[in-house]
Amino acid sequence: MLGSRYEGQVCSAARSLELVGERWSLLIVRDALFAGATRFSEFLRRLGLARNILSARLEGFVETGIMERAVREGSAYEEYHLTEKGRDLAPVIVALTKWGDRWAAPKGPPILYRHLGCRGEVLQRLVCAQCSAVIDHDELGVEIGPGMPGVA
Amino acid sequence: MLGSRYEGQVCSAARSLELVGERWSLLIVRDALFAGATRFSEFLRRLGLARNILSARLEGFVETGIMERAVREGSAYEEYHLTEKGRDLAPVIVALTKWGDRWAAPKGPPILYRHLGCRGEVLQRLVCAQCSAVIDHDELGVEIGPGMPGVA
Repeated sequence: MLGSRYEGQVCSAARSLELVGERWSLLIVRDALFAGATRFSEFLRRLGLARNILSARLEGFVETGIMERAVREGSAYEEYHLTEKGRDLAPVIVALTKWGDRWAAPKGPPILYRHLGCRGEVLQRLVCAQCSAVIDHDELGVEIGPGMPGVA
Repeated sequence: MLGSRYEGQVCSAARSLELVGERWSLLIVRDALFAGATRFSEFLRRLGLARNILSARLEGFVETGIMERAVREGSAYEEYHLTEKGRDLAPVIVALTKWGDRWAAPKGPPILYRHLGCRGEVLQRLVCAQCSAVIDHDELGVEIGPGMPGVA
């Protein structure tokens, strides 16, 4: 769908950007996740983007398994529903939102994420699976994993 | 820098994508954060992108305070260093990586994030500030925050 312009990059972040890094992609997923948008006309109205771009993005999402097409019984409208793969983008959207809240929202966050269970504020944390510490970015390292070419 | 093509969007995720949503932006930040890249030639070699695009991205990062220029004493080379604002993008890159590991890495993760303290695996979690629950995406809601126009 996007062409593989990050093809030299063996990296899951690059792979993700191949699938959802095009302009509008993550905002379409955001509206599906948090505003319950499902129809072409809803995305169009909410986002105000060009029809051909919206159409290309939704097609791409269906091709790559991020959304699936559905028709609700008794309705004439085709709908686009996020799959598990699509819904699993929630942490990416929350991470972008938190960064924007901190660095690009001088009047405060326009939108707050809430835990539906108790209405508490949602925090994003990097946590160590071994020692359970909350990890700041200066405690974050990388190493080669099994998916790196040449690694057994 | 990018033009404000998401200008109708009052949303911190959209604001973030204005600043780091262009092609290559997050991969440049990734290499600065996790590979310690600082020089134009390093980014160029590691990423294999066009010089003019790299140049535009680094300029943009300096303009928007994501990077700053520095010259190391005794060196002729100009360097680009992430600011706190830039380093704070780590959770966005980790979130993209985790999603890619799960959905686009059939051979397993090429890169693993480790806690430098104990070498434990790094997990990404959404946590409730009130009840401390780990929040799954189906327990995530949104509400209007103070930065929404028309909200006191």
